[in-house]
Amino acid sequence: MKKILTLSAAILLGVSALAQQALQGGPSTDSPVINPDGTVTFRYRAPKAVKVTLSGDFLPVRKIEMEMNGQTMTFEQPGMAELKEGQNGIWEYTTPFKVAPELYTYSFTVDGNQVLDLSNVYVNRDVSTLSSVLLVPEEGARSDLYAIHRVPHGTVSKVWYPSATAGFDRRLTVYTPAGYETSKTKYPVLYVLHGIGGDEDAWVTQGRATQILDNLIARGQAKPMIVVFTNGNISEEAAPLENSTGYTRPTMSLPQTMEGTFESAFPEIVKFIDSRYRTIAKKQSRAICGLSMGGFHTLYITLNNPDMFNYSGMFSAAIGTGSEGRATHKEIYENIDGKLATYFSRKPALLWIGIGSSDFLIQANNDFRKKLDAAGYPYEYMETDGGHIWRNWRIYLSEFVPKLFK
Amino acid sequence: MKKILTLSAAILLGVSALAQQALQGGPSTDSPVINPDGTVTFRYRAPKAVKVTLSGDFLPVRKIEMEMNGQTMTFEQPGMAELKEGQNGIWEYTTPFKVAPELYTYSFTVDGNQVLDLSNVYVNRDVSTLSSVLLVPEEGARSDLYAIHRVPHGTVSKVWYPSATAGFDRRLTVYTPAGYETSKTKYPVLYVLHGIGGDEDAWVTQGRATQILDNLIARGQAKPMIVVFTNGNISEEAAPLENSTGYTRPTMSLPQTMEGTFESAFPEIVKFIDSRYRTIAKKQSRAICGLSMGGFHTLYITLNNPDMFNYSGMFSAAIGTGSEGRATHKEIYENIDGKLATYFSRKPALLWIGIGSSDFLIQANNDFRKKLDAAGYPYEYMETDGGHIWRNWRIYLSEFVPKLFK
Repeated sequence: MKKILTLSAAILLGVSALAQQALQGGPSTDSPVINPDGTVTFRYRAPKAVKVTLSGDFLPVRKIEMEMNGQTMTFEQPGMAELKEGQNGIWEYTTPFKVAPELYTYSFTVDGNQVLDLSNVYVNRDVSTLSSVLLVPEEGARSDLYAIHRVPHGTVSKVWYPSATAGFDRRLTVYTPAGYETSKTKYPVLYVLHGIGGDEDAWVTQGRATQILDNLIARGQAKPMIVVFTNGNISEEAAPLENSTGYTRPTMSLPQTMEGTFESAFPEIVKFIDSRYRTIAKKQSRAICGLSMGGFHTLYITLNNPDMFNYSGMFSAAIGTGSEGRATHKEIYENIDGKLATYFSRKPALLWIGIGSSDFLIQANNDFRKKLDAAGYPYEYMETDGGHIWRNWRIYLSEFVPKLFK
Repeated sequence: MKKILTLSAAILLGVSALAQQALQGGPSTDSPVINPDGTVTFRYRAPKAVKVTLSGDFLPVRKIEMEMNGQTMTFEQPGMAELKEGQNGIWEYTTPFKVAPELYTYSFTVDGNQVLDLSNVYVNRDVSTLSSVLLVPEEGARSDLYAIHRVPHGTVSKVWYPSATAGFDRRLTVYTPAGYETSKTKYPVLYVLHGIGGDEDAWVTQGRATQILDNLIARGQAKPMIVVFTNGNISEEAAPLENSTGYTRPTMSLPQTMEGTFESAFPEIVKFIDSRYRTIAKKQSRAICGLSMGGFHTLYITLNNPDMFNYSGMFSAAIGTGSEGRATHKEIYENIDGKLATYFSRKPALLWIGIGSSDFLIQANNDFRKKLDAAGYPYEYMETDGGHIWRNWRIYLSEFVPKLFK
């Protein structure tokens, strides 16, 4: 009996990992904790530390000025707070305010070293930066769209398509709505593009896109649709960890993109999706949107294929950056006025533009809107607080999706 | 022109995340680096630290004894090494040996605090423990199966099935082999079960199962097959982060499992898969395997459904733990001798048992094999070095899969 009890105890400890954790005295401090009054408590165990701070985007923004090319640029940085040391070397900080419902990222800095909250298994990767994640959902608040509810869930698949342009298979993330597999219906398709730091995972992890879709569809606020998340770096097979270059560190340099190849190759993705899935393969049932670099891609893919998309969404679009000058496929960026005239002459259902009021790209977007206004071209516009951040992109997606395929 | 250059520079910085990183002076130290001579260098920036150590399963194992229920248990702990401080507060350690090809996990400890390698974006979650990941592949070595190669890739989907037993939808990971979507063929199905700390993600992240399958199938060493990764905790919808209980910390307590409910409900998963996918829906084309708790599940699901699986694999199976005593569905664990007799009388193609020589469950597995031997029941057995660890489970999967559906 004793032996059996002992083995049970080992099993109860959760075998290797948990056993190790228990032995090593690893993280045993609850963090973060959303308190009943809406404040949030963060804890970090560091008995020998002299100073522990917390940096997160729920704290008041700090503005940092930086000299670049002889100009002063202002960047917004997440706010910072100091933790106080308590019992057993556990440092603690409780926000002096109710933290508004939203999805946040944060990290600690212990004596100058940035570290993750090891009590929190929810980690986001943004290119090569890891952060801990805090979701504060609230019924009725927008962030409730980012939470998982007991509603019918779509299927989320990692799918490889043969790219004739790249010369190798490339990975897509594909969302098929609940009911897709059992219905005989054909579905409209939305293509969603990431920013320069992202990949085909970005909208699903940081963007909470599949939760937004499940919830909007379940509420009857969006049509059931297939959603395709592409990888906009044509020289890459897939996200880091998922490609044959191995466990190398993601590059910090500009990928092979914003030079026309991805945009010119986009129809091969549409063709693949139309052949693989039960799609309504026509303009009326196709939409495209993207954030930052993906907004730039969205604009040029739309204009170069005026019969392909009926709905286009530019979220904090990285237009006016001059990157067209490096183009491999110059034709993609040429004769924009003529392409705009052709595009609008075919009466697309929606061109939607969203940007934050402190986004460093707002001037370029304002210039673009002036061009549209001058020509009398119709579009919808949304301006939100804040800058070039995921909070805004989740807002734009959840505004854009309900407008589609009506 | 100046403005355009400035904006380009911001774009080049990779917008928010990378810009933040550059401003904050975040991780800028390459780690880990596989050197040309096969040694590996680890670095950690900690200018104010007094002591920095590295713990990882590529270092010689430490044995730790622990008193439990009056008995002394020996646990294997990953080895440890000290880093030395160099220029700019960068601590460094290079292994004095070539690191054998394998997938490893590791972490640093800075003045007593366990931290991840923030220069390495490859992080594994094992229940509530995060670790940094190092993959050393080598042509011809087994770990080459764990790397992604330019071979046809299967589709990996997160799929929800309605569980009548649980009363809510539950998530599965489903692998369909390359060519599934375009062929008209029906496929055999392998069900793969995780351990007590895992979920439907575990085999795909820590187990590298979809890479193993892609590579074995591409080499012609395994038949194309559908593979289903279940969640063995029937009270859970899905993995942490993916269920409606929100961003709460995964529980350390024993989930609702190893008490008969999951085993008795397993046929509803098989039924769902047979209805959703083009399967060969018969015993000859069905296999099941699992690690630790999943090996325990595999045994009882197999014995209670003697006409369902032709191949069963028990990897470090958590048998003999006495957990059957807590059963909700006692019938699942009753009359085992009779069930064994029935199962073997129907001549299954394979019962496969694998375990590490220092696994704390080896005695229980030896006892079980003695029972099989005494009755003359056939099985295959593999004993490897080491204990109750993922390295062994990846080995067992890559040994088991080529034996299926021949």
